[in-house]
Amino acid sequence: MSEATKPGEFELIERYFAPLAASSAGALGLTDDAAVLELAAGKHLVMTMDTMVAGVHFLDGEPAEDTAAKLLRVNLSDLAAMGAVPLGYTLSTALPAGVEEGWIAGFSRGLAADQERYGIVLLGGDMVATPGPTTLTVAALGTVAKGAALRRSAAEPGDAVYVSGTIGDGALGLMAERDALGGLAREHAHALIQRYHRPEPRLALGQRLVGLAHGVIDISDGLIADLGHVCATSGVAATIDADRVPLSAAARAALAADERLLARVLTGGDDYELLFTAPPQAGAALERISAEAGVAVTVIGIVAAGAGTVRINGADGRPLRFQETGYRHF
Amino acid sequence: MSEATKPGEFELIERYFAPLAASSAGALGLTDDAAVLELAAGKHLVMTMDTMVAGVHFLDGEPAEDTAAKLLRVNLSDLAAMGAVPLGYTLSTALPAGVEEGWIAGFSRGLAADQERYGIVLLGGDMVATPGPTTLTVAALGTVAKGAALRRSAAEPGDAVYVSGTIGDGALGLMAERDALGGLAREHAHALIQRYHRPEPRLALGQRLVGLAHGVIDISDGLIADLGHVCATSGVAATIDADRVPLSAAARAALAADERLLARVLTGGDDYELLFTAPPQAGAALERISAEAGVAVTVIGIVAAGAGTVRINGADGRPLRFQETGYRHF
Repeated sequence: MSEATKPGEFELIERYFAPLAASSAGALGLTDDAAVLELAAGKHLVMTMDTMVAGVHFLDGEPAEDTAAKLLRVNLSDLAAMGAVPLGYTLSTALPAGVEEGWIAGFSRGLAADQERYGIVLLGGDMVATPGPTTLTVAALGTVAKGAALRRSAAEPGDAVYVSGTIGDGALGLMAERDALGGLAREHAHALIQRYHRPEPRLALGQRLVGLAHGVIDISDGLIADLGHVCATSGVAATIDADRVPLSAAARAALAADERLLARVLTGGDDYELLFTAPPQAGAALERISAEAGVAVTVIGIVAAGAGTVRINGADGRPLRFQETGYRHF
Repeated sequence: MSEATKPGEFELIERYFAPLAASSAGALGLTDDAAVLELAAGKHLVMTMDTMVAGVHFLDGEPAEDTAAKLLRVNLSDLAAMGAVPLGYTLSTALPAGVEEGWIAGFSRGLAADQERYGIVLLGGDMVATPGPTTLTVAALGTVAKGAALRRSAAEPGDAVYVSGTIGDGALGLMAERDALGGLAREHAHALIQRYHRPEPRLALGQRLVGLAHGVIDISDGLIADLGHVCATSGVAATIDADRVPLSAAARAALAADERLLARVLTGGDDYELLFTAPPQAGAALERISAEAGVAVTVIGIVAAGAGTVRINGADGRPLRFQETGYRHF
């Protein structure tokens, strides 16, 4: 497209982003300086913010719809970990000057699809040019009944440690995407890749954990690192059994081919499952809400008094050690 | 610093950012998945988001304290334009792998100084690495009485057009910083550069414009472009007189040396003054609140029926034309 006919910032916002804000009166059509929102009585506001950089947090050249979905879902996963009901989000895009309009169109389609899926709306944001890689930031808002927000820091000795869904699929999916998982059946590779690109924020589960779970976190850095965050903020210790960690059929197949991938499963991150602790008497209630939310929850260990340490027992009962316990940005 | 002793993400957050969140219970010490906030009864939430990229929106190599101040103030200026009282902000930093810890320390000092100045607090955010330039995003929250938020779209025929403070200093300051303003006295150059780096969000004025002003915007893209936004969203036309636009002594000196700089003054942006319209009978009240807020307000033109057009009369009464009417990101 020639410079003369290339749409500018305001045209792009009007064409691709204003429709995403149309159902929110408070977004003011994205034509004002800020969004204006009313909070229902008796609610607290929950707010999170996550940034993704092309080539670091998502793959350069992946479909823009996937990028949009992941950007929203990693933020929604944080809201899930607080027990919040999502409300909406603001979006900042820093785009290279040469970005194709087709990319923006695909990106906005991906946002639209997940807005529908999760009942959220675009509230505002910013659009700038960058000489660097595409850099995307979302600030997501949700609500929770006053005083009811779930916390990382409330784990107690005697609690059981639970995870939702299956662990390791995202990290293995990234390897599969990069053809670094040799000999995996096509359908297994596909399933893992799909989980990497389209994590499922456990909103229905998180909302039902309010009043039931103690320490709660979403697994983004890695199971062991994130359990470490729960233990550190709660001032407790935890022991988990590696062979109780729930795996998908695809992850089991990958591990059967190369058992060293266990480290990747337990420390690779990108799971966006909920990790939580709950007292033993919560077991029956957890079974019920697991069914309601349509996602399995599995006990993988126990919480004891301690000072933030995490122990992982292998199948032989002896502790496993890993060089890296989770993703670090620096 | 060697890799072995270089602090990681969690250490940097603990050392430089957690102290900025210490006074907010809802920030949860930056150790949870999201912040939790209570909104006072009778209030609406106001939310804005702005991104700055090194080399695009701020100068590579400028003091990190200046970068921090500008990042917060451009967001606070948006809140000012809505009549909001600032509450707090979330911050996302995408930093090159080789960032100096000294930069982060200076940046956090700049944030701390402006938190104190404007009564705000860090609520949460994200910290990632980027192979590109430093990219900083703030989402700022404020409150306003329900239904009282100022809007761009409420300008009416018959209103006078006002601006706060003086116009053009930021854009000229950027030129002075780049030694592109020849022959300007040292104190004038210094004053303009200071205004470029440290815009003053007109919060006290914006809050007092509630119930009084009609269309309101903060001038970031440029006086003419931003007046155009007010006219377009309000469905009105405006005519302003270039020689009524208030100028600082430094800007007057720059214009005396080169009258072609008038285009820069009127279209350069980076003013972060408030542009607003108000009915003629509001004059006396505006004088009072101008004194209370400690910032001048000046009539520069009038609003008429029309379709979004802006006319600028020169000193001879004939319309001026500019090639660019304001900053565009693309």
